[in-house]
Amino acid sequence: MQEINQIMLQSSEAFKKYRKLSGKQKAPFLRAIAEEIEALGMDLVQTAMQEANLPEARLVGERGRTTTQLRMFADMLEEGSWVDARIDTAKPDRQPLPKMDLRKMLIPTGPVVVFGASNFPFAFSTAGGDTASALASGCPVVVKGHPGHAKTSAMVAGAIERAAERTGMPAGTFAHVDGGDGFEVGKALVMHPQTKAVAFTGSFGGGKALFDMANQRPEPIPVFSEMGSINPVVLMPEKMSQDAENVALTYAGSITVGVGQFCTNPGLIIGIEGTDLEKFLDVLSDEIEKIAPGTMLNAGIYKNYDAKRTIALAQNGVVTESVSKISKTAETQGIPTVASVSGDIFLANPTLHQEVFGPYSLIVKCKDLAQLTEVLGHLEGQLTATLMATENDLKANEEIVDTLRNMSGRLNFNNVPTGVEVCYGLQHGGPFPSTTDGRFTSVGPDAIKRFVRPATYQSFPEDLLPDELKTSNPLNIWRIVDGEFRK
Amino acid sequence: MQEINQIMLQSSEAFKKYRKLSGKQKAPFLRAIAEEIEALGMDLVQTAMQEANLPEARLVGERGRTTTQLRMFADMLEEGSWVDARIDTAKPDRQPLPKMDLRKMLIPTGPVVVFGASNFPFAFSTAGGDTASALASGCPVVVKGHPGHAKTSAMVAGAIERAAERTGMPAGTFAHVDGGDGFEVGKALVMHPQTKAVAFTGSFGGGKALFDMANQRPEPIPVFSEMGSINPVVLMPEKMSQDAENVALTYAGSITVGVGQFCTNPGLIIGIEGTDLEKFLDVLSDEIEKIAPGTMLNAGIYKNYDAKRTIALAQNGVVTESVSKISKTAETQGIPTVASVSGDIFLANPTLHQEVFGPYSLIVKCKDLAQLTEVLGHLEGQLTATLMATENDLKANEEIVDTLRNMSGRLNFNNVPTGVEVCYGLQHGGPFPSTTDGRFTSVGPDAIKRFVRPATYQSFPEDLLPDELKTSNPLNIWRIVDGEFRK
Repeated sequence: MQEINQIMLQSSEAFKKYRKLSGKQKAPFLRAIAEEIEALGMDLVQTAMQEANLPEARLVGERGRTTTQLRMFADMLEEGSWVDARIDTAKPDRQPLPKMDLRKMLIPTGPVVVFGASNFPFAFSTAGGDTASALASGCPVVVKGHPGHAKTSAMVAGAIERAAERTGMPAGTFAHVDGGDGFEVGKALVMHPQTKAVAFTGSFGGGKALFDMANQRPEPIPVFSEMGSINPVVLMPEKMSQDAENVALTYAGSITVGVGQFCTNPGLIIGIEGTDLEKFLDVLSDEIEKIAPGTMLNAGIYKNYDAKRTIALAQNGVVTESVSKISKTAETQGIPTVASVSGDIFLANPTLHQEVFGPYSLIVKCKDLAQLTEVLGHLEGQLTATLMATENDLKANEEIVDTLRNMSGRLNFNNVPTGVEVCYGLQHGGPFPSTTDGRFTSVGPDAIKRFVRPATYQSFPEDLLPDELKTSNPLNIWRIVDGEFRK
Repeated sequence: MQEINQIMLQSSEAFKKYRKLSGKQKAPFLRAIAEEIEALGMDLVQTAMQEANLPEARLVGERGRTTTQLRMFADMLEEGSWVDARIDTAKPDRQPLPKMDLRKMLIPTGPVVVFGASNFPFAFSTAGGDTASALASGCPVVVKGHPGHAKTSAMVAGAIERAAERTGMPAGTFAHVDGGDGFEVGKALVMHPQTKAVAFTGSFGGGKALFDMANQRPEPIPVFSEMGSINPVVLMPEKMSQDAENVALTYAGSITVGVGQFCTNPGLIIGIEGTDLEKFLDVLSDEIEKIAPGTMLNAGIYKNYDAKRTIALAQNGVVTESVSKISKTAETQGIPTVASVSGDIFLANPTLHQEVFGPYSLIVKCKDLAQLTEVLGHLEGQLTATLMATENDLKANEEIVDTLRNMSGRLNFNNVPTGVEVCYGLQHGGPFPSTTDGRFTSVGPDAIKRFVRPATYQSFPEDLLPDELKTSNPLNIWRIVDGEFRK
């Protein structure tokens, strides 16, 4: 672990220089990363295809998302208002005591350790949203390369290093650790005194272990782990009476897209028993049977899917509704599967509340709306929750809307939960255990808020204040000045 | 602990109703609390005087701060922009995929448990900033009354309960637990599954214990503990050559104000050895000798001060520079004391880096600016750091400015650190161990951010969206719409 110590000390030294760079100085670095990734061309895409078993079109799209994110943060740095500047000017004549001049803005907290996700080798890995937002905030980044796409990660790390060099970033601003599967390497990174925050996307076990370690440090640090989520979908009565078939067609796609390997995959669909739900199940089953098994990210993910699916289907009262009728052509292909269970049994068996990561969904058949509400009350925190409903359904069931909103990071109306837009309006991060900290998003501009804290300057001379806080507002950013939003 | 369970279940039930109230519905509740506190008149002030040994003028002032805070949050709720609304409108024609309508705002997280501070029986206790900001956010509050001012706490709790009743708040929105010193009561409150956040002001031991408990829950929750801080003051060379005497006169007051019982008390003053520093010490010593010992908050605080002061003064190389020459008139009076030590000895002895809560300050005499910088590099996270400096001093020593900024929540120029303004520009909360979470402030409007998280509505019909997110912007609040700040 001597190597880890050296990397973190370099990162900490880099922080002393990197934190002083302005937004306009950091933005070209982020743009250069995007360019260097693009310059790797199809070599990079093909490497990822081989390592992560993902199709070309998907990876080309994901690469676009990754470079778009980097440029979005560059735009944000150039615009500058993200620092949440707040200025209260002095009132020397105030009675009984004068009011001091107080000016606050967000500043970076220090080196960030990033653990990439297996299911997004570009957008949630080496140069993904965690790295982009941390570098944008002014924090150096150390990435532990994901063993599932080690070569891809090394190639992207090379792109970041070239970008850092050609834009003159301090040595150590970015580092890449090829730790393989080693738990010890991850632990050493999280426990190092110079590490100030951790970002992780993956399993509950992995994310929670990092969180626990970080809290047991002499100086605890925040860990932003995105973990598991079953993303409940609620089928409301009027909607189902009007549209059960279309809902089923839509959900057959959402359950199986990307071989079910999205964190927002709809793993639980809750409806009310009756002819509408049976029609939904019939159409859904027909569709699922026609969808071919797909090769999963890696052998570990496949084994895990196979094991959890087997356990779920073997639970007392669980009915296997449909299984793909198309034969597997490779060992590590996940079989599209839909099962069902009664509300009573679901309520009594917590095993059924757990995520089965892959192309699987469980339909819960509730007796009535009261039982449906009870089922929702038993669910844990989720990344997303979805209502398939008419406006009448919503108006007649405000409690259900309220419950779903308070359970999830994103409440979705008549859509599929898969598909996560990169924008201000999107929250990707829900109450525990879907993430370790639902107060932050890992997607979109606000992801930068994970790696900063507010700092106040009291009674500082104008010319020694950061530009963000100068009375003259040279950056022309939005600020709260004496209680009012203004430029 | 049956009682605690019942209180938390009521709080959780209240949350289901209270979270649905608009800002304009909650604001009258906060204003009514302020009115009910004022209606208690001098009875309340006298009770606090007896329990906390604080003078009348100070408590009248602190009561004003408390009611001002409540009204500030009421104003904020009525204005409404604090929810950080972000709207991205749909782009159905976007290629290759349509963009969904996504709208995000801050929502409350759930029941908050508040542990008040002994040193501010009004402003950081039962109806203090923690309670006011949590109630403003939409979270019910359960206060564990501080044993140091149990009667005061019960009186203020009564005021809150009357305010809740006359403004029609849901039953259980506020509760008061008179737990005495009982560690078990505090633990039961923090560990209860319905508790969603904790706010605490007090010692490092107490605050860290709550933090550790909360992280070991099956569902970890955030703990905002404000703990210890020695609030370093750096005396820069040019400033000292010009103004050593005035700096000394100012600091004699800041060290002893409120018998040194402010969290922002200057416990460490760092200068460079020589005639200027000796002049500073001479004047400071003369002043300290003339300041009478004051009765401390309670016997426990006094005993702690006496013990820590004795330990500090007994450390090898520590010189007692001055002690009040006025005799004590009561056992629990804290004696104003200033000591000094060389930079070498300070660097070698971590005991000297610890807070001595009371009217005590340690002067560190560094050999030169290099050693002063080294001393700063050895300090932990602080609530505040202060520079007594000319503008030339700052310009010639950018590294020192940068180091202090990155160590503290508030960087102060040519002021005393005592005196914490309630406003947007003030950050009260620094890096660990001064608080458990320096990303948040416990003072000022942004204190509300501790008890909320963002939630997104995707593709919701306009008339079913919360007012904050409706396209028509009926509340006329500031929002980010399609990437632009606007009303």
